[in-house]
Amino acid sequence: MVLAAKLVDALKAIVGAENVLTDAFDLSLYDADAETLDTASPDLVVLPASTEEVAAVVKAVATLAPTLPVTARGAGTGLSGGATCVRGGLSLVLTRMNKVLHVDAAERAALVQVGATNVSVSRQAEPHGLYFAPDPSSQIASTIGGNIAENAGGPHTLKYGMTTHHVLALRGVNARGEVVAVGGFNRGGLDLTGVVIGSEGTLMVVTEALLRLTPLAAKVETLLAYFPTVRQCGQAVSDIVAQGVVPAAMEMIDNLTLNAVEDYLGLGLRRDAQALLIIELDGVEAGIACARAIVEKCLHENGLLESRWAKNARERADIWKARKTSFGALGRIAPHGYVLDGVIPRSRLAEAIEGIAKIGERHGLTIANVYHAGDGNLHPCMLYHREDQAEVARVISAGREILHLCVELGGTLSGEHGIGVEKLMEMESAFGPRDLEFMGLIKTSLDPDGRLNPGKVLPQLKTCGESGARPLLRHQQLSC
Amino acid sequence: MVLAAKLVDALKAIVGAENVLTDAFDLSLYDADAETLDTASPDLVVLPASTEEVAAVVKAVATLAPTLPVTARGAGTGLSGGATCVRGGLSLVLTRMNKVLHVDAAERAALVQVGATNVSVSRQAEPHGLYFAPDPSSQIASTIGGNIAENAGGPHTLKYGMTTHHVLALRGVNARGEVVAVGGFNRGGLDLTGVVIGSEGTLMVVTEALLRLTPLAAKVETLLAYFPTVRQCGQAVSDIVAQGVVPAAMEMIDNLTLNAVEDYLGLGLRRDAQALLIIELDGVEAGIACARAIVEKCLHENGLLESRWAKNARERADIWKARKTSFGALGRIAPHGYVLDGVIPRSRLAEAIEGIAKIGERHGLTIANVYHAGDGNLHPCMLYHREDQAEVARVISAGREILHLCVELGGTLSGEHGIGVEKLMEMESAFGPRDLEFMGLIKTSLDPDGRLNPGKVLPQLKTCGESGARPLLRHQQLSC
Repeated sequence: MVLAAKLVDALKAIVGAENVLTDAFDLSLYDADAETLDTASPDLVVLPASTEEVAAVVKAVATLAPTLPVTARGAGTGLSGGATCVRGGLSLVLTRMNKVLHVDAAERAALVQVGATNVSVSRQAEPHGLYFAPDPSSQIASTIGGNIAENAGGPHTLKYGMTTHHVLALRGVNARGEVVAVGGFNRGGLDLTGVVIGSEGTLMVVTEALLRLTPLAAKVETLLAYFPTVRQCGQAVSDIVAQGVVPAAMEMIDNLTLNAVEDYLGLGLRRDAQALLIIELDGVEAGIACARAIVEKCLHENGLLESRWAKNARERADIWKARKTSFGALGRIAPHGYVLDGVIPRSRLAEAIEGIAKIGERHGLTIANVYHAGDGNLHPCMLYHREDQAEVARVISAGREILHLCVELGGTLSGEHGIGVEKLMEMESAFGPRDLEFMGLIKTSLDPDGRLNPGKVLPQLKTCGESGARPLLRHQQLSC
Repeated sequence: MVLAAKLVDALKAIVGAENVLTDAFDLSLYDADAETLDTASPDLVVLPASTEEVAAVVKAVATLAPTLPVTARGAGTGLSGGATCVRGGLSLVLTRMNKVLHVDAAERAALVQVGATNVSVSRQAEPHGLYFAPDPSSQIASTIGGNIAENAGGPHTLKYGMTTHHVLALRGVNARGEVVAVGGFNRGGLDLTGVVIGSEGTLMVVTEALLRLTPLAAKVETLLAYFPTVRQCGQAVSDIVAQGVVPAAMEMIDNLTLNAVEDYLGLGLRRDAQALLIIELDGVEAGIACARAIVEKCLHENGLLESRWAKNARERADIWKARKTSFGALGRIAPHGYVLDGVIPRSRLAEAIEGIAKIGERHGLTIANVYHAGDGNLHPCMLYHREDQAEVARVISAGREILHLCVELGGTLSGEHGIGVEKLMEMESAFGPRDLEFMGLIKTSLDPDGRLNPGKVLPQLKTCGESGARPLLRHQQLSC
């Protein structure tokens, strides 16, 4: 796309020349998020410093280049291609807007710019005994804006919920370049907060958020447990929840992954276990003691091989290190990993795990499994070599089959990574045509020109062939 | 409005002749909800028995009488006029659809028809150790559909949240009479669940809901406490939350109300206290013991007159009886009460209470106060005589001033009663014009003909004069 010099000049006047990038090398740095199967270069990158600058940028585009897509972007840690400019256009990078503007301890709320990292909010809240509960594994780097765009979760989603449960209000810019606000302590009217969260910047560009903060738990206890089979581990997880205990987290790692982690870190993990389970309890001491007894009973009733509670902060950190380095450690097996994000009803965990193994076998693929077991959010990771095009094609086919399996089991396409471009073509397997049309009416009412992050969230099959999305899918026989 | 015989015949063919009411006396039974300041008769009442019948009814209206409003209604316990047919039309009464279709204990979910009463869901869930957490005072009568339409709360909202936090998915009928679904275990796509909840049937007619169930607490303890001033009571509430304790409920009743309750029930309440505070703690025994110590410290530091913990279920029931009969007991003072529903930041409780008292004095009105103190949701109740038109006019003026006061203090128009017709004209004081326009785009995209519950939630000032809404407001000098 040849950009009008007039537009580039206008943008430079708004944000400063140094914050408008048009050089091919610079653009290539913004051609994907962490889901690197799908790449697409923006036509230009703009880094505004305030809500007002964002409004002026969007208004300039609407006036001078009305067909140019505008796609908001945070730290680029997303796993579904939500921030990738699949139809080119302007990549609106919000990482300069990284301030925690205000922490109100009495109201347990923080007003932040969306470019603030997830962890920076908790750091600023900590002196008040508070934190921001959603904890995606990317939290050191990922921004609040990205968390909102994809409705991010994390290990502690089991007890504390998703990003959407921790956002009180949003402020930002609509498709016309006007400043708008949704939600707030104002609970009247139509509450658009929920529909904007997870919409990947397709309805408005969010620039500031009022976040709900959560009191830090008085005490935390963390357990590491090993099981002889994945099925028994899954049953233990179901039993714990059925007993009325809601741990802060229940995370499962399979044999392949735990061995990769052990190769990498040498933590002394038990290599023969088919499943490693991490359970975290939090609350007041007496409540934890009660939950501990129930947890231990459920583990023993399901063939527990061995378990140990962390004795101190260092041991707790080591246990979490095993979980948090899982995907990195898998790099020892193959250079690339494609992490899926299906959700299933917790009661069907064992079926899902067996079904995924069969899909892997059928396609001759190695699939590692890391699960947010407590809430049925699966992260099967298919290991592959990007230069092996045939293997890439098998990875993509198997990925679609796994997502379909999740939907068949009564689950959903996405737990916390979002739809992005990755799962766009699976939407029709999860939603009926009228339900998708109902969603589409919302999109077109707020963004009639399709300016905001086109090609995401909602399938528009008529333009699929032209979209530039999922370039690696071109190897596949697609119906559209 | 003269109804086409063709339409009436078509509706009778769909739901049976006995489920279509057109007689003037029958219609008068549906001319208001529990907010009786605003009355307006429907042109006909239809009582369908299934989602499919609802779809056929809406489709028949869309085809045969496209300008006829369709307003869904549950048990009519609403307090903002949300179910009142302010522009006439069809009152779609869903109380025949009152079944709890399925309770899934493992997934902690219940599929219900929206005409099921709130309490019936908890009763069916109880054998599984579960319940539906939102507990509006109307819960014996009010329907799940009404709870969803107004995003109802209750005393336990403090810990457990509003209706919106306990709904997983909705199924129903769009403005064209087609069956649509939103939300679900499917978390991908645009999640419209949040915007439909609280929209008072203006976006779709919800007919079935998948509800989240909550485990019954292992133990519950309830405290009754008296304070010499409202200010000290409010400070104790703030202090408890600031100490990191989240009680299941914290409810405040003022001196006027507690004396009315004592006159009515003779529970032995202390008549000289300026504020009565009910605190409920739930959880496991050891956790409660810890919270109890903190609560007692905060009470004593703020001038506590006297307190007692309920010793058994009967004493606990008596404490809640004091709260739950409050509005009824005020009937001893004046025949009518107009209950407001503002929300303020908890930290500004004392200011709000004093401001409300001043507004009452200025208008020569008696205002009783019952608060969900823990979450800043105020229910000032203005006592009046309906036949005294001058007093009614003062009530309405004072009500608007109180809502404006809430907004000025950083709060909101509605905690749990919804906007309805009652607060329609206050929306512009709480939301900016662009934010209202943003909401309006959603409404017109899903219901372009304005068929579903017109005249609610969003102000449409151009038609205000013709609306028939708030007939008692005709005594006021209104700008529109």
